[in-house]
Amino acid sequence: MTVEVQSQATLIDNVKEDVIKWRRYLHQHPELSFQEIETSQFVYDTLSSFGGLELSRPTKTSVVARLTGSQPGKTLAIRADMDALPITEETDYEFKSQNPGIMHACGHDGHTAILLGTAKVLTRLRDKINGEVRFIFQHAEEQPPGGAIEMVRAGVMDGVDMVIGLHLMTTVESGQIGITSGPTSSNSDTFEITVLGKGGHGAMPQDAVDSVAIAGQVLTNLQHIVSRNTDPLDSLVVSATKIHGGSANNVIPDKVEIGGTVRSFNPETRDKAPKLMERLIKNITEAHGANYEFKYNKGYSSVYNDELVTSNVREALVEAFGEEVVQHTKPFSGSEDFSGFLTKAPGTYFWVGTGNQEKNSTYPHHHPKFALDEDSMEMGVKAFVHSVFKLLN
Amino acid sequence: MTVEVQSQATLIDNVKEDVIKWRRYLHQHPELSFQEIETSQFVYDTLSSFGGLELSRPTKTSVVARLTGSQPGKTLAIRADMDALPITEETDYEFKSQNPGIMHACGHDGHTAILLGTAKVLTRLRDKINGEVRFIFQHAEEQPPGGAIEMVRAGVMDGVDMVIGLHLMTTVESGQIGITSGPTSSNSDTFEITVLGKGGHGAMPQDAVDSVAIAGQVLTNLQHIVSRNTDPLDSLVVSATKIHGGSANNVIPDKVEIGGTVRSFNPETRDKAPKLMERLIKNITEAHGANYEFKYNKGYSSVYNDELVTSNVREALVEAFGEEVVQHTKPFSGSEDFSGFLTKAPGTYFWVGTGNQEKNSTYPHHHPKFALDEDSMEMGVKAFVHSVFKLLN
Amino acid sequence: MTVEVQSQATLIDNVKEDVIKWRRYLHQHPELSFQEIETSQFVYDTLSSFGGLELSRPTKTSVVARLTGSQPGKTLAIRADMDALPITEETDYEFKSQNPGIMHACGHDGHTAILLGTAKVLTRLRDKINGEVRFIFQHAEEQPPGGAIEMVRAGVMDGVDMVIGLHLMTTVESGQIGITSGPTSSNSDTFEITVLGKGGHGAMPQDAVDSVAIAGQVLTNLQHIVSRNTDPLDSLVVSATKIHGGSANNVIPDKVEIGGTVRSFNPETRDKAPKLMERLIKNITEAHGANYEFKYNKGYSSVYNDELVTSNVREALVEAFGEEVVQHTKPFSGSEDFSGFLTKAPGTYFWVGTGNQEKNSTYPHHHPKFALDEDSMEMGVKAFVHSVFKLLN
Amino acid sequence: MTVEVQSQATLIDNVKEDVIKWRRYLHQHPELSFQEIETSQFVYDTLSSFGGLELSRPTKTSVVARLTGSQPGKTLAIRADMDALPITEETDYEFKSQNPGIMHACGHDGHTAILLGTAKVLTRLRDKINGEVRFIFQHAEEQPPGGAIEMVRAGVMDGVDMVIGLHLMTTVESGQIGITSGPTSSNSDTFEITVLGKGGHGAMPQDAVDSVAIAGQVLTNLQHIVSRNTDPLDSLVVSATKIHGGSANNVIPDKVEIGGTVRSFNPETRDKAPKLMERLIKNITEAHGANYEFKYNKGYSSVYNDELVTSNVREALVEAFGEEVVQHTKPFSGSEDFSGFLTKAPGTYFWVGTGNQEKNSTYPHHHPKFALDEDSMEMGVKAFVHSVFKLLN
Repeated sequence: MTVEVQSQATLIDNVKEDVIKWRRYLHQHPELSFQEIETSQFVYDTLSSFGGLELSRPTKTSVVARLTGSQPGKTLAIRADMDALPITEETDYEFKSQNPGIMHACGHDGHTAILLGTAKVLTRLRDKINGEVRFIFQHAEEQPPGGAIEMVRAGVMDGVDMVIGLHLMTTVESGQIGITSGPTSSNSDTFEITVLGKGGHGAMPQDAVDSVAIAGQVLTNLQHIVSRNTDPLDSLVVSATKIHGGSANNVIPDKVEIGGTVRSFNPETRDKAPKLMERLIKNITEAHGANYEFKYNKGYSSVYNDELVTSNVREALVEAFGEEVVQHTKPFSGSEDFSGFLTKAPGTYFWVGTGNQEKNSTYPHHHPKFALDEDSMEMGVKAFVHSVFKLLN
Repeated sequence: MTVEVQSQATLIDNVKEDVIKWRRYLHQHPELSFQEIETSQFVYDTLSSFGGLELSRPTKTSVVARLTGSQPGKTLAIRADMDALPITEETDYEFKSQNPGIMHACGHDGHTAILLGTAKVLTRLRDKINGEVRFIFQHAEEQPPGGAIEMVRAGVMDGVDMVIGLHLMTTVESGQIGITSGPTSSNSDTFEITVLGKGGHGAMPQDAVDSVAIAGQVLTNLQHIVSRNTDPLDSLVVSATKIHGGSANNVIPDKVEIGGTVRSFNPETRDKAPKLMERLIKNITEAHGANYEFKYNKGYSSVYNDELVTSNVREALVEAFGEEVVQHTKPFSGSEDFSGFLTKAPGTYFWVGTGNQEKNSTYPHHHPKFALDEDSMEMGVKAFVHSVFKLLN
Repeated sequence: MTVEVQSQATLIDNVKEDVIKWRRYLHQHPELSFQEIETSQFVYDTLSSFGGLELSRPTKTSVVARLTGSQPGKTLAIRADMDALPITEETDYEFKSQNPGIMHACGHDGHTAILLGTAKVLTRLRDKINGEVRFIFQHAEEQPPGGAIEMVRAGVMDGVDMVIGLHLMTTVESGQIGITSGPTSSNSDTFEITVLGKGGHGAMPQDAVDSVAIAGQVLTNLQHIVSRNTDPLDSLVVSATKIHGGSANNVIPDKVEIGGTVRSFNPETRDKAPKLMERLIKNITEAHGANYEFKYNKGYSSVYNDELVTSNVREALVEAFGEEVVQHTKPFSGSEDFSGFLTKAPGTYFWVGTGNQEKNSTYPHHHPKFALDEDSMEMGVKAFVHSVFKLLN
Repeated sequence: MTVEVQSQATLIDNVKEDVIKWRRYLHQHPELSFQEIETSQFVYDTLSSFGGLELSRPTKTSVVARLTGSQPGKTLAIRADMDALPITEETDYEFKSQNPGIMHACGHDGHTAILLGTAKVLTRLRDKINGEVRFIFQHAEEQPPGGAIEMVRAGVMDGVDMVIGLHLMTTVESGQIGITSGPTSSNSDTFEITVLGKGGHGAMPQDAVDSVAIAGQVLTNLQHIVSRNTDPLDSLVVSATKIHGGSANNVIPDKVEIGGTVRSFNPETRDKAPKLMERLIKNITEAHGANYEFKYNKGYSSVYNDELVTSNVREALVEAFGEEVVQHTKPFSGSEDFSGFLTKAPGTYFWVGTGNQEKNSTYPHHHPKFALDEDSMEMGVKAFVHSVFKLLN
């Protein structure tokens, strides 16, 4: 045991430079969702260079690598996402994006580099592994419906017993890891409401159907869905975040458009929300003689961390980093396509802190000055390697 | 002409004492709506004593007297109301109510006395009158559906060409008269709404249908009927004046009851109001999964003063009292059963001021200390007599 | 008398062709408010050609002409407005606008031509006129604060006893005239509200101050100003006609902007409205932890037709056109800068119908296909000429 | 170990009859909160009869008994509540309440009997106990501010390391036990709002300040506190459960009274709620020219089960009854004065099922037909005894 752990530690230490180098290459060459042509080629080529991995391309821009251990056992998938965002980078790094208007502003470059590093380390420890480790390099996490569903349909989860993943987070302090069983990211849906009234002169409201005033009532009544129709012990958010209608001071517009987001953790609550919303919108508009349109778009589902897998990974993390590093975290209200893989196997998703004031890596995700504390990537590799041995052996 | 007018003036002066005496008798013996047994008998007997009138009892508690002039002509009806209110009088008059809990607190005793005085004067002037004067002593003005509709059905308006009436008003200064063509009192309706939710524990709103919160939305949305659905040049009032639901701090009640009044002048607006209200109540409750009950009770219709009759009566009043006495008044938002007679003939209804600080006659109508300035009754007689000659001759 | 009237009729008939010619010239050369350089020069030159008028230029783009009668008397002002609108004409007339993007789409070309025609006729009847007729050719009616206030400050109303004006209306049938004493156009104000919240993630409303939801409450509470705070016998309109805030489905915007119009007839009601609005906006935003901005812009005041002047003009119109032509009209909810002149003298403003299906002149005012029934202009001249003799002689 | 457990089992079995007898006596002699004179005397006398307990009366109607183990150790308090409710019993039991209008309709008779039984058993096992067991018989649980605070002030928790308690629940099936760490009952507060407007005639809203319409806006705006101002991962309920104002259809009332409840688990959320409510009520009423009164009454605090104590008690319960009996339960939204003792020491509170269709013991708590499945009391004794040995030894 002691020998093995030292060996792991040395291997992880050795791969550190590679991980940083890979990450910077990826950072310089960001590609948008579903367009990760060069990125996936780079991942494929790098994985090929390690030897001992069985590679495949489940979709045009994704990559899967299988590592079969020396002993029979379970199959553990580890997933990283590879796509970048339509943001113009505003940092001063040497390895700044070379693709105008595109930037790795969410840390997926780091995720990909970590998983490459993990794969390299584990190929060297192959004879100590029971079962299979499957490395999933996912395309298109940033853009629903996302790449996970495509990869699952292509069979990448066939035979998988457990799946794990991580996200580098600037909102978590560098050196800390957060992991909790249960819901860890939310169901993230969006909606569009159109209040269809009848235009008219502002001085003669009786001849119009005032879409602005009715939109006010729609917004006001919508609050009841959370305040009155939802179990206080459950979670639901209905946020109308944009509203647009009318252009002249004396003309009542014929319509007002409202858009927003709905977040939940519980699937029943998620299903109930659009029904309650439509009942309300339909009737409020009808109450005032107006019509409506309502579109509800399901985004990624909540990532629900399995209790057993999570407690095993937590143990592995505590062994690797100590009690004080591994925190319980509240569910993250953002969305994450990792849930697509959880439809096929239980798993867990955890947060690796990369927020560091001194290194200027505390900008929010999706910010044009977003940055990583690159030291956190070594923690990511170590976290994955330790989890593999805890879960498979 | 000069002779005749002097004669009128003398007759009116002579009847003054009688009018006060009759009024005080009536004030001492008030009777509720539909129960004017003694009152109508007193009126009948008094009219009989004048001679020259053809008397009838169209309903159990009403009286009609016809005076046929010496020359053929039109038929003019003059109406007074006779009923009192379920109020315990708090004045110190010698002629205070002798019927416990019943009081002439609206001035109908004065109206009846004025019309008796008018009848007495006119019987003395019979040979100067063209056509017919019909004196209508109405029962049950204070209690919808009111006595007017019964009397009309009994035929009291058959053959009538014009109808006039007056109300003594403590809100108008003694010595003044108000008259305006067009709407002069409002359509006065009432409503009852029940929001039918589902009771439940205050801590678990998701299992209840919260009738209180929904009632809040009903009230809020109801405002649109006036603010958005009514022509700004028209008049509509929708006032919810009572709301009751729930008794415990931790129990969501299954229902909330709301009541109120709707006022309008225009018949189309009146008809539209309950339709708009029900559309709104139905849909607002449905928006939140509740049911409803809605009752709309039509009260008296708006008194609409005919332009021609009004302008003639106005001329008569100006001749009788001078320009400075006869005011234009804004429509009165209260209700008045006189409108029941206007369904059969054009007419006008005017306000005779009886408010006098020194005589303590400025209490609002229906107040337990309500009082008249008895001098205003002579003005009433004079107003009617002059109107008769203007309208008939 | 007979001779004189025939003479007027002949003169009016003779000027008819001129009026149409002048109107078409003006229609081809429209100019925006405050830029009526060529228009006012044309008016000046045309008036000069009549002889007998004392001309002046109170402001750069307005014109005043005085005609002094043969006998002393009162001074009557007659006003026409001259400016056009920023609208691209879509008609097929030969005399279509030659100035791209500018169009006489409200009939001011007709008003100016009518007043020129009236001036020409009256110069020929000068020896029959008592007192002075003052012809006011106003610039900038379409753009508050408007030209009236500038002209009044320049003294054009000094010594004026009465002022009259007219508007050609496509919503009134050609051949009809509408005139009513009392309010005839509304006080027309505008407002801008900004709800200043605090932006945030749509999934974490507790960290934001949700300007969209609060805007909903502002709209909803605003209804009370009309439904609860305004005398049902008075008129007030508060219409929010535009609302804009937010651009992303998952970002609560930091502000929402609302704009709209307020219409009233009564000056007290007008003054009260912005105070009630600000009290409400201030407190509703504060109730939810937000701030606000509120701008209230007073537009033109209500045109209030003087009872005496109106009844005289009505008599003149009845004599000129017959009872069946002269209608009572409900107050117009639009705005009209004529009220600026009424601050200095009593007057009246009336509507001359120009709506004619066969002549395709029923498009609403400010429509790119707006058209006049040019025959209505002769009615305008005749209406003014008859009013002059009624009011001055 | 084996011997000891058998001994416990036998003792528990032997005390079963006593527990039922005691409970029935208590059931027959119910006393209201703060009036538990006979009840506490009965408890005192019964405890005296066991021998080996050090008894005291911390307040007039409460009792504490200390049992000092044979070995030094920690101090564990066990608490039962003793008061009854102002309810008229509607059962047919022989041991039905003999005190008219008072009833043990919440199971406190059972709790007291269980704790007496536990004390009797443990006095027999004294030499096997390390440390001290302190039996707390609390008065006045049903009536805030409750007896717990008085007993704590009297020092009953001095030196206590842990405290446990239980509640018999008809909503939990007989034979089951529920226990969960974290919040297990809610902070339970109440509020009273008065909207102070200005009365007036229903037809003249402009002269009134309409307390009914404003109350509607208060209710509607209140929804935002939960829907917009509360972390979706936290719990808050604000329920207005009663509303009363007005009595006539045509009179706008001068005030409307609203009452309700606020529930939360988190103390910060609890503190924030009345501040948000008052900000909102103050500003909404002010927005419409009204005033307000607001009273917020803090009830019992949330019972928060300590993670360590709970996990130890859970283990004890699983050992005693088996895995399938011991459930995780969602927090209970009701209130419980046990939280008063938790201010002094960590502890846990659990639910012992007593709901049994066949025994007719499924009426809700506080129902006049409320009943216990008396077999569940033996489970209560066993649960306490096992917990004592797990926590102290």
